[in-house]
Amino acid sequence: MTTTDGEDRIRRRPDDEEADIYDEDGNVRGDFLALVGAAIADRDTLFLRQNVARLHESEIGDLLEAIQPDQRLALVRLLGDDFDMTALTEVDEAIRREIVDQMPNAQIAAAIGELDSDDAVYILEDLDKEDREEILAQLPFTERVRLRRALDYPESSAGRRMQTEFVAVPPFWTVGQTIDYMRDEEDLPYSFSQIFVIDPTFKLLGAVDLDQILRTKRQTKIEQIMRETNHPVPAEMDQEEAAQLFEQYDLLSAAVVDENGRLVGVLTIDDVVDVIHEEADEDIKRLGGVGDEELSDNVLSTVRSRFLWLLINLGTAMLSASVIGLFDGSIEKMIALAVLMPIVASMGGNAGTQTMTVTVRALATRDLDIYNAGRIIRREAGVGVLNGIVFASIMGVIAGTWFHDYQLGGVIAAAMVINLMAAALAGILLPLLLDKMGADPAIASSVFVTTVTDCTGFFAFLGIATWWFGI
Amino acid sequence: MTTTDGEDRIRRRPDDEEADIYDEDGNVRGDFLALVGAAIADRDTLFLRQNVARLHESEIGDLLEAIQPDQRLALVRLLGDDFDMTALTEVDEAIRREIVDQMPNAQIAAAIGELDSDDAVYILEDLDKEDREEILAQLPFTERVRLRRALDYPESSAGRRMQTEFVAVPPFWTVGQTIDYMRDEEDLPYSFSQIFVIDPTFKLLGAVDLDQILRTKRQTKIEQIMRETNHPVPAEMDQEEAAQLFEQYDLLSAAVVDENGRLVGVLTIDDVVDVIHEEADEDIKRLGGVGDEELSDNVLSTVRSRFLWLLINLGTAMLSASVIGLFDGSIEKMIALAVLMPIVASMGGNAGTQTMTVTVRALATRDLDIYNAGRIIRREAGVGVLNGIVFASIMGVIAGTWFHDYQLGGVIAAAMVINLMAAALAGILLPLLLDKMGADPAIASSVFVTTVTDCTGFFAFLGIATWWFGI
Repeated sequence: MTTTDGEDRIRRRPDDEEADIYDEDGNVRGDFLALVGAAIADRDTLFLRQNVARLHESEIGDLLEAIQPDQRLALVRLLGDDFDMTALTEVDEAIRREIVDQMPNAQIAAAIGELDSDDAVYILEDLDKEDREEILAQLPFTERVRLRRALDYPESSAGRRMQTEFVAVPPFWTVGQTIDYMRDEEDLPYSFSQIFVIDPTFKLLGAVDLDQILRTKRQTKIEQIMRETNHPVPAEMDQEEAAQLFEQYDLLSAAVVDENGRLVGVLTIDDVVDVIHEEADEDIKRLGGVGDEELSDNVLSTVRSRFLWLLINLGTAMLSASVIGLFDGSIEKMIALAVLMPIVASMGGNAGTQTMTVTVRALATRDLDIYNAGRIIRREAGVGVLNGIVFASIMGVIAGTWFHDYQLGGVIAAAMVINLMAAALAGILLPLLLDKMGADPAIASSVFVTTVTDCTGFFAFLGIATWWFGI
Repeated sequence: MTTTDGEDRIRRRPDDEEADIYDEDGNVRGDFLALVGAAIADRDTLFLRQNVARLHESEIGDLLEAIQPDQRLALVRLLGDDFDMTALTEVDEAIRREIVDQMPNAQIAAAIGELDSDDAVYILEDLDKEDREEILAQLPFTERVRLRRALDYPESSAGRRMQTEFVAVPPFWTVGQTIDYMRDEEDLPYSFSQIFVIDPTFKLLGAVDLDQILRTKRQTKIEQIMRETNHPVPAEMDQEEAAQLFEQYDLLSAAVVDENGRLVGVLTIDDVVDVIHEEADEDIKRLGGVGDEELSDNVLSTVRSRFLWLLINLGTAMLSASVIGLFDGSIEKMIALAVLMPIVASMGGNAGTQTMTVTVRALATRDLDIYNAGRIIRREAGVGVLNGIVFASIMGVIAGTWFHDYQLGGVIAAAMVINLMAAALAGILLPLLLDKMGADPAIASSVFVTTVTDCTGFFAFLGIATWWFGI
């Protein structure tokens, strides 16, 4: 019964692949998960081959993440040679390791042979040295050399992400020759959007987009239509930098060259899109005070990745506590101060976070530079003053009414103005300072900003109160 | 003198365009800015034509953002017809409006005619209705119809972002016919990576990648090599959803179809990359409590965009203040409580933010769904307990030594454990709840989470202290 269900599932696929395994929220459909789970349980390889093996790599990836952890390896084993290793490039690192570590090297080698080099590298780089060597040893020579070359480049460099398969022709070829070559050549990349022009030593001379070739007469020489590639990517370039090149110049793919300007591979936009995602992820998580942890991490590694941040925060929290300690006498005489002081601090913390978020993001997207920094600082100061006045008045009235003491209202209002200005300045100056010092502003900004706003808030409020009421 | 400098600048451009206008930090070079500024001042159109007009659209965009606000319009005016309107798609919305609003509609219309439809729409959609109509009226009929069609689709829909220029052929054509057609056709899109196959009513039948055409014999029929496009994008689809399709299936471009499955345009990866950026930006800014404000916004609109958030925070801050108010008696008797209570609250706030950040991000990237939610919740609870115990012990010892009162140390330790668990649960449950309710978890999560941790922190600490010391 499952099998028939499976078969009409297949018949249904071409016309509505999307609707097939996902529900409207984009989650893998429950009934499909149940079917797969059952099939894994009774080792129904036929069903799995027919319904899972044929899915798109990213769909298999989502499926692997959705099923029970203990079912993952079983699924891969049952699919055997029908399992598309590319799917492993679509899952969390933790899940990938867990699966790859337990797959026999022979099977990995066999599968790797089928992959584009960039996907192969993506999987190989996670393996420990000896496993990797054992797998590489089992690959055909040219394949092995290509992958070694890519793996020799530093982690998260363009060289690691590049695809070593590409089409390159000499400048004196005609468009006709080039087209005929591509018609006859068996071993072309899986898909490509431009071809490269090189000299006999593989030095990169230029590139031609495929549409350019298609709109040109056969007898035209390649050198006549090739454009100098203004943005060849050095293999050592950091992937983030490469991604910025792609975004700025709307590239679909870019030549990757070694230190001698020789063409070694091609970087494609789909890899770059992944990079853009990773970078955004990093920024968000760092702002939130979590390292590069993944959803599939276990309790211990999660605790570890968050510990340092919390420890630092404990230190800064005690700093602001000791500021309060300076005024314990005043608080004893006027308990309302203890009740109101967190409000001043928390408003400052929020305003500061707002400014900091904008600053950090502007720095990440390079919208903020030395030329407009001055203007932005003035703007944020202005915002701080305005918000300060507004919320000072609101809070002043509330506090005054709450404790039937309008002098107290005046005190908290004054403290509020001071703290919101401090917040604005800390929110923009601290990230800029960290950036100047070469640190990533996203990492530490928020802890510093809130330290400033907490201490300033408590000190301003309690200090002014102590002075004004002479306590 | 500036001009000669300008000329050798031009001679320098082809081989190192990058190095040309940017310094190593990726900022527009100061000396270049100075030259441009001076040229604008003495209306040196020759220099500007030679050095600015030839830059890449995104470089002109960066330049417009880097120069003094009052110079921007002047630069555009001086460049006249040599100004590449596409550059306006690369600058902040505020700057784009400021420039476009002051350009004569005639000039805009002339420039718009030169643009790809997606760029034209990008600029037209910001204009107020009458200006837009006046400009459209000055465009050739077909152009006008195309743009109208795109503008009729809802904001930030695929239809708005699509390019209405594309190459489409009937299925019975041969590869040879297709190539010849592209060779002879004058009016092809600026660049494209696939051609579409349609029936006489423009119904989408399939697509063929250009590399596929190039590796196929001339006499082969298109229908033999075309693949059914599994992922045509409905014109009404939200651009974010469309972007997810691109990412999941590694698309370079996708057909955009109307409700009748008729091909109306093509969505390209470069637009999608921009969308991915906007979405990441949105998430980061919302988590930081700032609306979709831009760096070029002025003080007032910035104050406006942050006001609501601060107001809500004021409310929640007063809520936690009133929790403290419940225990003013205890604080009066034991002032140390006032000093220590912010530590408990702030640790909870940080731990909660950590969990919330991971949850919100996981929801945004669809990594978190009903199938693994249970596991993640258990993990976060575990993390909360572990961190709770660790920091409870640390804080207990510190507080005990600080105030020479180890009972107080025990009290704060207990409160810490409770608050870090509350933080973990709030951090994951609140975003999930908001998501279930169809709200964007990024928007309101952090204010709710910190409310929970502040109130829990103060209540647990002061409550336990009051009970334990019987005050």
